[in-house]
Amino acid sequence: MSQYFENIEKIKFEGVDSDNPLAFHHYNPEQIILGKSMKDHLRFAACYWHNFCWDGADVFGQGTFGRPWLKPGDPMERAKQKAEVAFEFFSKLDIPFYCFHDIDVAPEGNSIKEYINNFAQMVDVLEAKQEESGVKLLWGTANLFSNPRYAAGGATNPNPEVFSYGATQVFNAMNATKRLGGENYVLWGGREGYETLLNTDLRQEREQLGRFMQMVVEHKHKIGFKGTLLIEPKPQEPTKHQYDYDSATVYGFLKQYGLEQEFKMNIEANHATLAGHSFHHEIATAVSLGIFGSIDANRGDAQNGWDTDQFPNAIEELSLIMYEVLKAGGFTTGGLNFDTKLRRQSADPVDLFHGHIGGMDHMALGLKKAAEIINNDFLASKVKERYAGWNKPLGKDIIGGDHTLESLAKYTVDNSLDPKHVSGQQELLENKVNRILYG
Amino acid sequence: MSQYFENIEKIKFEGVDSDNPLAFHHYNPEQIILGKSMKDHLRFAACYWHNFCWDGADVFGQGTFGRPWLKPGDPMERAKQKAEVAFEFFSKLDIPFYCFHDIDVAPEGNSIKEYINNFAQMVDVLEAKQEESGVKLLWGTANLFSNPRYAAGGATNPNPEVFSYGATQVFNAMNATKRLGGENYVLWGGREGYETLLNTDLRQEREQLGRFMQMVVEHKHKIGFKGTLLIEPKPQEPTKHQYDYDSATVYGFLKQYGLEQEFKMNIEANHATLAGHSFHHEIATAVSLGIFGSIDANRGDAQNGWDTDQFPNAIEELSLIMYEVLKAGGFTTGGLNFDTKLRRQSADPVDLFHGHIGGMDHMALGLKKAAEIINNDFLASKVKERYAGWNKPLGKDIIGGDHTLESLAKYTVDNSLDPKHVSGQQELLENKVNRILYG
Amino acid sequence: MSQYFENIEKIKFEGVDSDNPLAFHHYNPEQIILGKSMKDHLRFAACYWHNFCWDGADVFGQGTFGRPWLKPGDPMERAKQKAEVAFEFFSKLDIPFYCFHDIDVAPEGNSIKEYINNFAQMVDVLEAKQEESGVKLLWGTANLFSNPRYAAGGATNPNPEVFSYGATQVFNAMNATKRLGGENYVLWGGREGYETLLNTDLRQEREQLGRFMQMVVEHKHKIGFKGTLLIEPKPQEPTKHQYDYDSATVYGFLKQYGLEQEFKMNIEANHATLAGHSFHHEIATAVSLGIFGSIDANRGDAQNGWDTDQFPNAIEELSLIMYEVLKAGGFTTGGLNFDTKLRRQSADPVDLFHGHIGGMDHMALGLKKAAEIINNDFLASKVKERYAGWNKPLGKDIIGGDHTLESLAKYTVDNSLDPKHVSGQQELLENKVNRILYG
Amino acid sequence: MSQYFENIEKIKFEGVDSDNPLAFHHYNPEQIILGKSMKDHLRFAACYWHNFCWDGADVFGQGTFGRPWLKPGDPMERAKQKAEVAFEFFSKLDIPFYCFHDIDVAPEGNSIKEYINNFAQMVDVLEAKQEESGVKLLWGTANLFSNPRYAAGGATNPNPEVFSYGATQVFNAMNATKRLGGENYVLWGGREGYETLLNTDLRQEREQLGRFMQMVVEHKHKIGFKGTLLIEPKPQEPTKHQYDYDSATVYGFLKQYGLEQEFKMNIEANHATLAGHSFHHEIATAVSLGIFGSIDANRGDAQNGWDTDQFPNAIEELSLIMYEVLKAGGFTTGGLNFDTKLRRQSADPVDLFHGHIGGMDHMALGLKKAAEIINNDFLASKVKERYAGWNKPLGKDIIGGDHTLESLAKYTVDNSLDPKHVSGQQELLENKVNRILYG
Ligand SMILES: [Co+2]
Ligand SMILES: [Co+2]
Ligand SMILES: [Co+2]
Ligand SMILES: [Co+2]
Ligand SMILES: [Co+2]
Ligand SMILES: [Co+2]
Ligand SMILES: [Co+2]
Ligand SMILES: [Co+2]
Repeated sequence: MSQYFENIEKIKFEGVDSDNPLAFHHYNPEQIILGKSMKDHLRFAACYWHNFCWDGADVFGQGTFGRPWLKPGDPMERAKQKAEVAFEFFSKLDIPFYCFHDIDVAPEGNSIKEYINNFAQMVDVLEAKQEESGVKLLWGTANLFSNPRYAAGGATNPNPEVFSYGATQVFNAMNATKRLGGENYVLWGGREGYETLLNTDLRQEREQLGRFMQMVVEHKHKIGFKGTLLIEPKPQEPTKHQYDYDSATVYGFLKQYGLEQEFKMNIEANHATLAGHSFHHEIATAVSLGIFGSIDANRGDAQNGWDTDQFPNAIEELSLIMYEVLKAGGFTTGGLNFDTKLRRQSADPVDLFHGHIGGMDHMALGLKKAAEIINNDFLASKVKERYAGWNKPLGKDIIGGDHTLESLAKYTVDNSLDPKHVSGQQELLENKVNRILYG
Repeated sequence: MSQYFENIEKIKFEGVDSDNPLAFHHYNPEQIILGKSMKDHLRFAACYWHNFCWDGADVFGQGTFGRPWLKPGDPMERAKQKAEVAFEFFSKLDIPFYCFHDIDVAPEGNSIKEYINNFAQMVDVLEAKQEESGVKLLWGTANLFSNPRYAAGGATNPNPEVFSYGATQVFNAMNATKRLGGENYVLWGGREGYETLLNTDLRQEREQLGRFMQMVVEHKHKIGFKGTLLIEPKPQEPTKHQYDYDSATVYGFLKQYGLEQEFKMNIEANHATLAGHSFHHEIATAVSLGIFGSIDANRGDAQNGWDTDQFPNAIEELSLIMYEVLKAGGFTTGGLNFDTKLRRQSADPVDLFHGHIGGMDHMALGLKKAAEIINNDFLASKVKERYAGWNKPLGKDIIGGDHTLESLAKYTVDNSLDPKHVSGQQELLENKVNRILYG
Repeated sequence: MSQYFENIEKIKFEGVDSDNPLAFHHYNPEQIILGKSMKDHLRFAACYWHNFCWDGADVFGQGTFGRPWLKPGDPMERAKQKAEVAFEFFSKLDIPFYCFHDIDVAPEGNSIKEYINNFAQMVDVLEAKQEESGVKLLWGTANLFSNPRYAAGGATNPNPEVFSYGATQVFNAMNATKRLGGENYVLWGGREGYETLLNTDLRQEREQLGRFMQMVVEHKHKIGFKGTLLIEPKPQEPTKHQYDYDSATVYGFLKQYGLEQEFKMNIEANHATLAGHSFHHEIATAVSLGIFGSIDANRGDAQNGWDTDQFPNAIEELSLIMYEVLKAGGFTTGGLNFDTKLRRQSADPVDLFHGHIGGMDHMALGLKKAAEIINNDFLASKVKERYAGWNKPLGKDIIGGDHTLESLAKYTVDNSLDPKHVSGQQELLENKVNRILYG
Repeated sequence: MSQYFENIEKIKFEGVDSDNPLAFHHYNPEQIILGKSMKDHLRFAACYWHNFCWDGADVFGQGTFGRPWLKPGDPMERAKQKAEVAFEFFSKLDIPFYCFHDIDVAPEGNSIKEYINNFAQMVDVLEAKQEESGVKLLWGTANLFSNPRYAAGGATNPNPEVFSYGATQVFNAMNATKRLGGENYVLWGGREGYETLLNTDLRQEREQLGRFMQMVVEHKHKIGFKGTLLIEPKPQEPTKHQYDYDSATVYGFLKQYGLEQEFKMNIEANHATLAGHSFHHEIATAVSLGIFGSIDANRGDAQNGWDTDQFPNAIEELSLIMYEVLKAGGFTTGGLNFDTKLRRQSADPVDLFHGHIGGMDHMALGLKKAAEIINNDFLASKVKERYAGWNKPLGKDIIGGDHTLESLAKYTVDNSLDPKHVSGQQELLENKVNRILYG
């Protein structure tokens, strides 16, 4: 087994009294919360890409991490070395799941045949590593955005041969995901958008994307993949504008192509904020539309306008997120994937652990606080009371379709309605939430 | 006839050589562009609210305009005085249309009966003024956001009596719009959103809004209103978040409730930018979804985060907007409504003319430039060439449903596809657009 | 004494185990933290304007609160009624300080003489109320932005008569502040900026503002006011751009006019975020420039682009703010003023208590957590270790002025310097902060 | 001479009637505008970095351009090949100036000695290319942000050895700039800021930066460099926050260290917008503070939150920029440097020409329009009239220091001042500007 993280032992739960930064203080995998273990509630996953495929470069500077497996060398050897380190990390972190893109794990090669061959070999490797370690695949996906051929998109490319190439990758990545027991398959279209409207046919590109997604559904059923198909919205970056802008936008797309029963959302916190929404908003919206599936747990920077993909640490927000998840019945196939990157200065191997331990502890704490909110019940009862009128005759009749504008006009006049506003008690509710968070 | 604007004559087209700021330099109503008069292309409207119901107040200061009809007095007398001045303005500006909210034109009174009675009287007044002046109604709407009863929304209010009260206003406003020959009826839900997720049931409120919109459609058909129903998206302000966030969001909403054939969009420039989109994006998106209807022509401020509703003056943007409109076949019942407010310092009555003359000239210039882009054809031919592959066998087969992921994977491998990216020529296209704008 | 808040008793500290929402759970005025009472650390103030001069109106709707003293009536009677309620509130809240603008407390009248006379009468009233209640004045200020005469600014108005009128208000407000024992005098220039560069002379307006501020300093010394002069930065709103954009901008202004020893900053959280900074950034910057003075404690909305002035409730942020304040030696004359407004729906009188109790408890909790960070010392020791090289010969010589570019070039070559980056440990530090916040 | 752009001839002015996209339509170098040739007014420069050191990669994808000189190979050979292509480009574009960072032109090597040696060799190459081509150096600079050693900053690094290494680069880059006849030397501190306040000492880092800038000034005088020292502000990216946030911030920094006579600003359009300002604002502010120097001409994207560095094409904005430059007396040593990058899809070599030709034509058109605004005089005369009161006794006495708050209070009362607001005529002025832009 790889020993890149040579002085680091398997991370254990030590509780809030431990001062050991390389221990969990809140995440106690087997602790039961509302009848289910934390591990089963949270379904944590680590990602391959930011952790093992990125060396700390940004647009203004070179890599700072110096990872040995990212140095020049034989691509397949490097890929295997990378897999060794990745599973060393997953195991030591005691994280139950991981996620990957096809070309995170295998060299894309110089032709489609090399791609297929490399990927097939690496799937064998991953299968063995999974078995050896017990780490499972939360989801797989295909990268249709890094190679120059995708500069103008994958499924929405003006050239149908690029569409075909992309379809080939997705075909292979879906098959691999099924074989590796992946519980979901994700689609994020980093270049599925436009750079300028001057050269773009929005309707055409949307048709292409619609057909692509339908093919994904057809293939899922054909191969008997039992997992969930997930779309991950993002408003922009790298493109000027992406078609899967946010949850509400994706919902409209799914409805247009009759796909709303086939896809759910993988919501990323930082994508929510780039879209001008709160993370909470995106989760609650997806739940309300019946398309909530999974979470890419990270955070953005409120002042910076790009995807910083930082580790989540705002308990106030995470508790409300977990409250939404619990209200929605919890994860089924989805989970909490850390789509997170270290700060470029965090160049020590151990920083990978600090980031993830913090993220796991913070989400676990959010879960505990969410359970308290559920148990305390003040939010649910306030909401119930606030909308109580909709369970009375007038409200029921309106929703039930027994009223028209005309009949309501008559009702309003006949009863000389003069309804008064009542306090929404926002400040009181915020205080109550904080009482739960902090005592 | 009112003589509030006492030294101002009817505004005339005087052409680009005129130095008279109180003349049109580009907007020549009868000039034919691509086979249709400018007047018929542009279908300009002035609004009642910002021009005649607002006295220059903002959150930090009192009104600065000193409009006589906004001073204390008998409400119905003031309303009639307001109508006098409004039609004096419309006539002198030679603008063919106007738009209003119910309580812009009539005092809302202290009860629903007073509201109905006041509004009915004022509709008589408006009908007479329309006939006298020849000015027509582009659209009517109802204000379900200013009165305290709507603090928590109209259709989405937790109290069904507020829903009923709002339905009564919409019932009356739709009937009035029909009677006044209005060509469209608009719905903008300034309070149809939430202030905090802590006290909000998103699914419940969405159901309410869906039913409300269905009732609007049913009523339209019942009374035989032939105009178009329009929804005006806005992301936020006054609420933290509005349900009609942007065009793509509204599209999803319409699809959910089976309304996508019944509603079109009234796109406002400043609402587009508050949603994180360009004005061009929102127009092009609505067109591509088949829901483009009308425009609230204004502009925001790229540095300020609220609805500044300034007069449109960016010809570069307006030309591309008009290009989208022309490509989409032009307005049918829709038009260009100036949902614009003077700067608070622009306290002279004549400033109302400067604002609108500029707006009309700038949109007219945009129309002329758009026609040149159409005639020149470089944008359309570039787009056609760029997507040419989708008219060849591979592309046709994909869109036609004759391919699966598997068949494409086979095709890609069998043909050793290795498609290369080609230049999108964005810089060249931008240069060409500017050549048309400036010579 | 007024009994507007009739069923509300004086708010008391009841501790974290109390379920009473009308009690303090963290703010225990006499509790000693790091050798000083909470009351003396926090120096809380409530504001006159949002609480007692605003009826819940926003740009899209009328007032929702229905405060009796804001209804039509004799202005001086209404002002006295308002003062009664204000001091009832301050007393019941047990808040030690309050703040006001001149025309918050007195009607501005129809002439400068009426203004002076009204204000003088109300200062007598306030003096009596202060004595009766024991509530003290944290700071006074003058409103040079609401009256239409200030549409184009006060000190920066193109008309020197407006400057003179504004100077008269500041003269009276400073004198009143001194007489009422105010501990600071604040200047915020809501209209000291521009609407459009097209009609603005930036250099001229800056000269005017510079002279105005010098006159304020001269007057302070002349009357022997011992309090601190504070400038409150804000980037925009109501103007497109304000000259006191943020702390760093104000610092440059002060340096230009030789005023950096005479003014300190009153930092408002929501103004920080509107300027594109974090609240923490603005506090830390002001401290680092030696111009930190006081705080307007509130919060903005990360998604909305205007000044929402909500009650502060993010303990994570407030703890770091209080940590900066403690590191800087704590407040001297400054304090924590709640420049906060209720949400427009929070129309119950008791909501004013919920908002402030929450704000006070949250700041008090932040203080306790900040003290823990001080005691724990991990942040300070990390910083000390990180910059340790600047206490060694090379660092000392550079800062001491003993090196030139040339001598450093020689030193670098002679020693073949090849310094390596080290981890900034951001993730670890974030985890440690959260351990203190949540255990 | 290199023939990378093999089918492209030297770009010539062909006028507005030419359809040739590879010609200038507005930029006529020898045309006289307000007594000076366009070439001397505009002083265009192309940059080395985006054009010749970047292969089209972004954070989500690999390079798309396939530039031969960026492929693996002997570093010095590649650097010479790059210089060949660069000067082929500058010559064919007929652009009078260029700009570079030290490590744009020379490989940084594996030690400080290699760096110095490589750079010295390449300065010889550049000197020969300049002489051969007639292209001159607008400015040089040093890159203290790409190498991992600068991850935590150059001058503001916690490690003084990194400061020393950076000083060595600046020493060499300043010397090279002087030798190559550079007319300015620029400092942009891409990593001179912070990633998190948790590990940062703002006061310490500011002291370091202050001393660094003083050393730069001292070195300038020591070597007799006659050019201008320029600081280029940017608010953030790559860091969370940069110390040279915007012009006003830099002004305060310069004042603190007594450097305001020694530095001027190099204003970049996209940095202005990232700071929440308009480009126009930043130019006008720098002019008003007496620190305007030069321009990095590009544009950002109003919807994307990162530095897109697109080619400038908004004539409305560029005309007002050039109007400010003309009012300020025009450039002295400064100029218009295209700090611009192609869109990643613009992969044809000729796209480099389209981008720059457009940029040059658009700026030239802006210059012509600015001259028209000067000649027309309506903006200047409006401003003069608006502030006329400040040339009358009251205004003069105030600015002249002859008034106090007290004397103004007396003056206001004695004269019963009641100044009224007047219209700022923003809409009229905007219309007039557009009349000049479009006829
Ligand atoms: Co993600
Ligand atoms: Co992300
Ligand atoms: Co509108
Ligand atoms: Co608007
Ligand atoms: Co505020
Ligand atoms: Co404030
Ligand atoms: Co630049
Ligand atoms: Co840039």
